Amino acid sequence: MSSPDLVAERGGPVVPSRSALRPLGPDEVRIIGGFWADKQELNASAILPHCETWMERVGWTTNFDRVATGTIGEHRDGIEFVDSEIYKLLEAMAWELGRRTQPELDVRYRALVARVAAAQDDDGYLGTAFGHPGQPPRYSDMEFGHELYCAGFLLQAAVARLRTGFDDDLPAVARRLADHLVREFGPHGRVAICGHPEVEAALAEFSRATGDTRYLELARLFVDRRGHGLLDPVRYGREYFQDDVPVRDAVTMRGHAVRALYLAAGALDVAVESGDDQLAEAVARQWTSGVARRTYITGGVGSHHQDEAYGDDFELPPDRAYAETCAGIASVMVSWRLLLRSGDSRYADLIERTLLNTIMASPREDGRAFFYSNTLHQRTPGEQILDNELNDRAETIMRAPWFRVSCCPTNLARTLASVSGYFATATDHGVQLHQYGDLVLCTELASGPVSLRVETEYPRSGRVTVTIEAAPAHEISLSFRIPAWAGDRATLSGAGTTLTASTSGWLEVPKVFSAGEVWVLELPIEPRITWPDPRIDAVRGSVAVERGPLVLALESTDLPRGWTVNDIEVEENTLATTEQGARLRVRRRTAGSGLWPYGSRTPATQDDGIEADLRPYAEWANRGPSTMRVWLPTVSS
Amino acid sequence: MSSPDLVAERGGPVVPSRSALRPLGPDEVRIIGGFWADKQELNASAILPHCETWMERVGWTTNFDRVATGTIGEHRDGIEFVDSEIYKLLEAMAWELGRRTQPELDVRYRALVARVAAAQDDDGYLGTAFGHPGQPPRYSDMEFGHELYCAGFLLQAAVARLRTGFDDDLPAVARRLADHLVREFGPHGRVAICGHPEVEAALAEFSRATGDTRYLELARLFVDRRGHGLLDPVRYGREYFQDDVPVRDAVTMRGHAVRALYLAAGALDVAVESGDDQLAEAVARQWTSGVARRTYITGGVGSHHQDEAYGDDFELPPDRAYAETCAGIASVMVSWRLLLRSGDSRYADLIERTLLNTIMASPREDGRAFFYSNTLHQRTPGEQILDNELNDRAETIMRAPWFRVSCCPTNLARTLASVSGYFATATDHGVQLHQYGDLVLCTELASGPVSLRVETEYPRSGRVTVTIEAAPAHEISLSFRIPAWAGDRATLSGAGTTLTASTSGWLEVPKVFSAGEVWVLELPIEPRITWPDPRIDAVRGSVAVERGPLVLALESTDLPRGWTVNDIEVEENTLATTEQGARLRVRRRTAGSGLWPYGSRTPATQDDGIEADLRPYAEWANRGPSTMRVWLPTVSS
Repeated sequence: MSSPDLVAERGGPVVPSRSALRPLGPDEVRIIGGFWADKQELNASAILPHCETWMERVGWTTNFDRVATGTIGEHRDGIEFVDSEIYKLLEAMAWELGRRTQPELDVRYRALVARVAAAQDDDGYLGTAFGHPGQPPRYSDMEFGHELYCAGFLLQAAVARLRTGFDDDLPAVARRLADHLVREFGPHGRVAICGHPEVEAALAEFSRATGDTRYLELARLFVDRRGHGLLDPVRYGREYFQDDVPVRDAVTMRGHAVRALYLAAGALDVAVESGDDQLAEAVARQWTSGVARRTYITGGVGSHHQDEAYGDDFELPPDRAYAETCAGIASVMVSWRLLLRSGDSRYADLIERTLLNTIMASPREDGRAFFYSNTLHQRTPGEQILDNELNDRAETIMRAPWFRVSCCPTNLARTLASVSGYFATATDHGVQLHQYGDLVLCTELASGPVSLRVETEYPRSGRVTVTIEAAPAHEISLSFRIPAWAGDRATLSGAGTTLTASTSGWLEVPKVFSAGEVWVLELPIEPRITWPDPRIDAVRGSVAVERGPLVLALESTDLPRGWTVNDIEVEENTLATTEQGARLRVRRRTAGSGLWPYGSRTPATQDDGIEADLRPYAEWANRGPSTMRVWLPTVSS
Repeated sequence: MSSPDLVAERGGPVVPSRSALRPLGPDEVRIIGGFWADKQELNASAILPHCETWMERVGWTTNFDRVATGTIGEHRDGIEFVDSEIYKLLEAMAWELGRRTQPELDVRYRALVARVAAAQDDDGYLGTAFGHPGQPPRYSDMEFGHELYCAGFLLQAAVARLRTGFDDDLPAVARRLADHLVREFGPHGRVAICGHPEVEAALAEFSRATGDTRYLELARLFVDRRGHGLLDPVRYGREYFQDDVPVRDAVTMRGHAVRALYLAAGALDVAVESGDDQLAEAVARQWTSGVARRTYITGGVGSHHQDEAYGDDFELPPDRAYAETCAGIASVMVSWRLLLRSGDSRYADLIERTLLNTIMASPREDGRAFFYSNTLHQRTPGEQILDNELNDRAETIMRAPWFRVSCCPTNLARTLASVSGYFATATDHGVQLHQYGDLVLCTELASGPVSLRVETEYPRSGRVTVTIEAAPAHEISLSFRIPAWAGDRATLSGAGTTLTASTSGWLEVPKVFSAGEVWVLELPIEPRITWPDPRIDAVRGSVAVERGPLVLALESTDLPRGWTVNDIEVEENTLATTEQGARLRVRRRTAGSGLWPYGSRTPATQDDGIEADLRPYAEWANRGPSTMRVWLPTVSS
């Protein structure tokens, strides 16, 4: 089934044809130990098989078989867009296979590809919810049918396979599908867009991977058509779909958060490929406004449960944070594109924050249950969810094994399998380290190959040791991202000197490196108190505790029996370091008295309090049902 | 169409056969001027015709004609339960006709009754959404069909007509419908409940009005059946329907707020009629817990937009307050029943708060647009909604003329038309004044008739003057409710003495009154600062300003051009009285700087500020789009 025109350069999920920084593919950066190796191992050993098993169980995989046998009109399982979960799983498998040889996984992957391929219609259309006998016609529900959204994930899965270079089975399916999309929606096709953006970035990337510019042109059409009211409005308004204002005119992130961010990623791809700086700058401005006014301290976005949407500026309630795992992933996709384009370390800062505190909050420590939304304040302990229970509620109570709308687990799987792609980049004359983990990096600069090894217990420790294993005989730059929280307290030592960070976001060493040379970055990860912007009403009078890149949380599991996190206050000046995170003095607050909770001022707390441990937010609810909060009211005067 | 067995005692909406306090009907308490007369006039002259016109326009009235002509299967307008809006309008018209003679309204009322009556099926079933050719079968969707909910409002409309004593046309329709319900769902019928409680209170009241105990028995069955999982669960869980726990076992108000409160009202009616103190006390406990932990300062309830539901304890975000107008009305229904049962003034306190600050916030000052939800913090000014625009969003931005789900305007209309019923009660030996307005009260005590006149500019003024016009020649008690906020600062003067309130909630004068005697109540309505219970995270560090029973708000209309309410803080010790409300010093807060809104503590505000007026919350957004907040951050130290 191979077609020789489908041979792509090896690389990671995003390979722009022009950029300030060049991304490094899975062959160039390999995670070899520590925090992230553990997560990738969890993904391979638990999350991937978990997703496979559940999708067989709930019939989503079987939908493809039913299309192949012509029986899908009689019965189909799951909501409209469950095909996309299979595609995201395929993408995750492809990256995982690219990471290391796994014959058993390869067999599973190929079998699943064959089932998907068998469901493709003769004209290239692929989808199990529309267009077959007994089903609604193709593209009859652009608002909520999600057909292009699903197609996009198929293309992404094909890109993963192309870039890891094994076979063309799925890429060939993707090509036929993309060609169908061009015929259907291209310059001579219908003027329509999908209610859920995704296909834009996918088409752009598939264009990059195949060299076929028709796909990029279609991506551009979809981006340009948006914002002109092509979709029927929903009760949340056209901004839910980002169909209220054209991308290049919008001033902030708004509406359904995952939709907003997938669209931003696609718009950036289109902008970068066509040198459309106005479009790219528009998205960059939206990113800035969204980060400054509509983002949780965890990097999560989405302040409303109702429409899974951004709220108004500074509307960031911790107890109703939606902060969907997929929105975190989509945010990383956008920040990564902006980072590659500009080299600005602020984008890598947000990637780190979001990866460690939103995305990694999703999987339970055994990789068999997931948060869909990621609250910052849980007032009542949830009930343990059964391992065989299909979850109808995306609400945060406890992590659940599977959801009726189950976009997050497979999205997490594909992100973890390809996460090494976010750690480093190169330019002609240097290497940039953005994220810190145990890894080996080998790539080719203009003056020759460079190879280095990074060793660290980060984020547990702030020390990062880089050993040069090979370097050109010419000067190159080795650049370390300095997170904004580290400020000028970060130091870098090597070759007998110690450099101190400025506020540029980088420590750069321009030098002719020699093999065996060692550089040590020290980041100040001791716990610190963080205050919110006073315009964030919902957390006024409260502080958070962070430790390095990790947001910490107080969980009732670490409080005396009978305490909850709901009636406490903390003495911020008692903060101390522990092995797991931090510790500070927590008091039980004097409650109001009487029937009516409004009236005279409540007297100051008399309780002496206890010392309580704070631990990484992302790990909460792994020790059973609990109450939890990130924002800690300070002792009232 | 009259049937002689349908002659009820005259009275108001709730006439228990036993109670601590006896409610007074529209013949016994008449509002004759002031604040509430204005509102009743607005209702008669604007709100009622507005509702009639809109329901003709959107086809909801025509649905009944279509049933009568057998064409409803071809087309029906509106969601499942729009019949109930017609019934609530009929109830409102009936109370309004009971209030004073209005021949033109009488003609409109009778014409509408005739159209509804013509749609009744031979077996008594009445409803336009189910059971006719081309429609789903009757009672095929107990979760969301709302058939019993609609039936309940028809019964309530009939009760209004019976108690105001004009004709039996609608009561006869109601009787046939109620008999149908007994056959269908009674002791020998199907064991089912409606997804939206309402019919319970309606059946109980129709039983009281007709003397037919079968209806009360059916109400009891519906109450007892609830909480055992008869309804299919929704994604919000069975508590959405209050089908999670039996009423008598539940410990707090929970789930969809209107459902919860309508159910509580019905359960109380059943409990009172059957002397089931355990059930009544269970509801009283739920009321107490709900008030202390799940109620906004405005009396509004419902902290979630998503499921229109109560949140967790102390989860009361002002900017996402749902506080549906109908939930306010339902809350008054529950509190009124508890007040009649116990005589505890706390119930009347909440009625006053909810009437003045939630329910009266709904209508625009011209009575032709309405808030459905009632936020306590509007961050962005809305856009003016067109007067001919059917509104798809119940979200608060600006008041809208009509909604696709339009439960609130007609509910408001029936409440305003019968609002005099909540002002006073009697016992064998006394009269109790609960709410203060210009009114005349004439009723019969054990020792003879009593007649008095109340004159006041309340809530603008704290002075209430009561003139005895006639009284028995025996000692009776005249009791004045003292709102909790007035505490021991209220005084009552008459017959040469002055009484000062204790904390009992009452000032009672036991005396042989003589005609012409005058008593003057002075309530301390000057503005005051109110602090929230420290467990209400969302308003920590903020205060509200109240003036007598009115919650005040800061609206951007009263700030300098370019200011919003989102970046201000107030100096609480500058509070002063104005004619409209209050005034205090407001500063613009120093904003955080930089990209990321979390980090070091923001420096204290330097701005000198301005004096800004606060006005009654219920009147906000009557002067054009604005930002608004009830909870005001105090100057940070």
